[in-house]
Amino acid sequence: MKTLKPSFPHRHLLGIEGLSPLDINYLLDLADQQVGVSRQIEKKKNTLSGRTQINLFFEPSTRTQSSFEIAGKRLGADVMNMSVASSSVKKGETLIDTAATLNAMRPDLIVVRHQSAGAVHLLARKVDCSVINAGDGAHEHPTQALLDALTIRRNKGQLQGLTVAICGDILHSRVARSNMLLLGAMGARVRLIGPTTLMPPGIEKFGFEIFTDMRKGLRSVDIVMMLRLQLERMSGSFIPSVSEYFRYYGLDAEKLSFAKEDALVMHPGPMNRGVEISSEVADGPQSLICEQVEMGVAVRMAVLEALATHLPNG
Amino acid sequence: MKTLKPSFPHRHLLGIEGLSPLDINYLLDLADQQVGVSRQIEKKKNTLSGRTQINLFFEPSTRTQSSFEIAGKRLGADVMNMSVASSSVKKGETLIDTAATLNAMRPDLIVVRHQSAGAVHLLARKVDCSVINAGDGAHEHPTQALLDALTIRRNKGQLQGLTVAICGDILHSRVARSNMLLLGAMGARVRLIGPTTLMPPGIEKFGFEIFTDMRKGLRSVDIVMMLRLQLERMSGSFIPSVSEYFRYYGLDAEKLSFAKEDALVMHPGPMNRGVEISSEVADGPQSLICEQVEMGVAVRMAVLEALATHLPNG
Amino acid sequence: MKTLKPSFPHRHLLGIEGLSPLDINYLLDLADQQVGVSRQIEKKKNTLSGRTQINLFFEPSTRTQSSFEIAGKRLGADVMNMSVASSSVKKGETLIDTAATLNAMRPDLIVVRHQSAGAVHLLARKVDCSVINAGDGAHEHPTQALLDALTIRRNKGQLQGLTVAICGDILHSRVARSNMLLLGAMGARVRLIGPTTLMPPGIEKFGFEIFTDMRKGLRSVDIVMMLRLQLERMSGSFIPSVSEYFRYYGLDAEKLSFAKEDALVMHPGPMNRGVEISSEVADGPQSLICEQVEMGVAVRMAVLEALATHLPNG
Repeated sequence: MKTLKPSFPHRHLLGIEGLSPLDINYLLDLADQQVGVSRQIEKKKNTLSGRTQINLFFEPSTRTQSSFEIAGKRLGADVMNMSVASSSVKKGETLIDTAATLNAMRPDLIVVRHQSAGAVHLLARKVDCSVINAGDGAHEHPTQALLDALTIRRNKGQLQGLTVAICGDILHSRVARSNMLLLGAMGARVRLIGPTTLMPPGIEKFGFEIFTDMRKGLRSVDIVMMLRLQLERMSGSFIPSVSEYFRYYGLDAEKLSFAKEDALVMHPGPMNRGVEISSEVADGPQSLICEQVEMGVAVRMAVLEALATHLPNG
Repeated sequence: MKTLKPSFPHRHLLGIEGLSPLDINYLLDLADQQVGVSRQIEKKKNTLSGRTQINLFFEPSTRTQSSFEIAGKRLGADVMNMSVASSSVKKGETLIDTAATLNAMRPDLIVVRHQSAGAVHLLARKVDCSVINAGDGAHEHPTQALLDALTIRRNKGQLQGLTVAICGDILHSRVARSNMLLLGAMGARVRLIGPTTLMPPGIEKFGFEIFTDMRKGLRSVDIVMMLRLQLERMSGSFIPSVSEYFRYYGLDAEKLSFAKEDALVMHPGPMNRGVEISSEVADGPQSLICEQVEMGVAVRMAVLEALATHLPNG
Repeated sequence: MKTLKPSFPHRHLLGIEGLSPLDINYLLDLADQQVGVSRQIEKKKNTLSGRTQINLFFEPSTRTQSSFEIAGKRLGADVMNMSVASSSVKKGETLIDTAATLNAMRPDLIVVRHQSAGAVHLLARKVDCSVINAGDGAHEHPTQALLDALTIRRNKGQLQGLTVAICGDILHSRVARSNMLLLGAMGARVRLIGPTTLMPPGIEKFGFEIFTDMRKGLRSVDIVMMLRLQLERMSGSFIPSVSEYFRYYGLDAEKLSFAKEDALVMHPGPMNRGVEISSEVADGPQSLICEQVEMGVAVRMAVLEALATHLPNG
């Protein structure tokens, strides 16, 4: 009689879509073990020693790229950053040629951010190594959802049964989308709060509770997950003005008081203080925002390690 | 009685010019041994452990810089990338000061790309470490010629006696120039194919066969080496239009059929699909394009290792 | 009876201000020991193995960033570069959020360059790790002063009793400011030479000898420390013209002849040849300019090692 060690059965991490609760728990458990590594003086493992990790960013993102770079280096991988100005990438063919070129250099892991939904899937089909989606258009950002889940789990014990409000620009947010999928899969109840103009059409069919009034939406929730408002959306028809937006949808102490007393506040960063969140709340005792960043490194270490070492070639 | 191990007798790799067939074979043999390293799970040697490699790129080149970075890291070197915006480099003096500054940091290897022919030679005279030319103006790109040679040798057994057609913008191409020198030295027969406007004046004196008609030029060749057409040349007097260019000089299946049945197709990348090469050929069974990229890492590992470890100070 | 090993009692290196002569000597002695590391074939220690060093540059500086990167890598640290375009940093709050985000990734060392005096102090108050000021506005650049001191000490035996002339744009120079503090603390006599428009108002109260005439100011000095003239200052009211500036304040052989016969010439680089210094002098036998760069790596290794390994958490 032998107990099989559970493992991660996927070659890539392209999204939360397609992951089972078992898969998600496997990554969260592994991430939990990685937290301690970064808290040591010598923050180093050698599980990815001699592996090549390429961070391929078609959109700049200092924060996510840094988190993946630190994660890879702490596991002992050789990490290479490639920032590709979008101007040099004009056609889908170029993305495929980029994929083929990188593949021929025989990396083990490619971390990709791209401005188009689906680009990461396309790339994954063209390479032999593992691909991690670090954000593709308005589609998915799976490591963000995993780090949010890890942060919640470490503070609330479990995800199941919690009520989580996701607030703001749901329509354009890959963070919202990945979180909705993950929280749904893990048995949390998800509420979406935002102006109608920033709500995906037909979203109510998917079983989420939809609110346009933030005070109503926050009533008795366990977790308030704020989204970053893309400032370029301000000057369009989505938002009348920043101050109007903050008045109705910015999280301040007064609005937060409608949530449970022990409700916790999250934000994927970088924050627009005074736009979607007040400094009082962002820096207050209910905020998990810094812990999210720390868990980001742990989750990325877990994902890199799971993909690189649990496959037949690993 | 002692058999001397052959070695590489040069401090720098500034071009194919000046290399003997023995030197070239030495690097190709060493590169052949490096191919396996990148195919292992743990892609790591320690031959350059504690050595400092600086990639100094005055012209951006994601592809070549990545290849050198991966090569150096897989050998255990500390690799530092320096991208120097050409705007900050206005005078020859500045290049010399940059060289003196870098030299004082005591690197072992400097990999340089520069927009001016001769800049790499100038820099090499000012430093104590080894310098590798990663492309200087329209002058030389020796590691490209070496990786092309390695790719051909692994597919055809040897270079000697092969007929190689180099096609396209011969005039502006450092890739063409380095390949012409290497192939000539190794006993291959070189044909140059392209419009008269893109052919170096007086080139026929050097013993190459010159063709302006691609079908005639490709007749019975073993290797078809396409060059990248710099798109900025399109709007000048060199090329009437992209579609005209493709019609006369773009490699498609029909034109390729004039070459030997087992002819192989090469391109240094990145490709302009539909300009100098059709996708059918680029992705077809005769294409070695991805293998060239893989051999690029192996050749750069060989060059870095040969220069850093085979000299008196190594 | 136990002899206490001297150590560096500060968590951060934010400036020369606040360092005792004992602190300065400790760092210079440690730096002296690091010089040999970079002169070996295998330039590698493992004192910072598993530590994370972040180079956070809000202003570009190829030279200083490279020096810190090489220093960290030679000590075995994981080094991550973050270049933050100043356009994305609009408010003080953003700097604090950047600090909090980086801190949550649990680095050991953050090396910061920022265009505003005081920004580095602000950041240091928000993080748990050690912060090194790599230049903040016109305020301080402590590792430059330390590398200058190390270079002088290795050539002149000691700093005490030497007469050092700092020449040029004293008003805007963090290099001048850090050097004035260090040289004063170590018992050197400091002269400041420059046009009145580039002299800080009221500076004479601090006990420096002030000269507007370079020949008078250089008379019998041991060290001539030239400053870089920021070319953007040229088009203002500070300087009439480049040729005028060179005539009065550019260091050439004739002006240098007023200094002691064995006087030595320094410049923090990059030089404007023909503006603040002639090539004859910059490349002449009295120039220490390349040695300064080499000592820069050694000093930065010393500072990184001292901060990372001599504190309770180290």
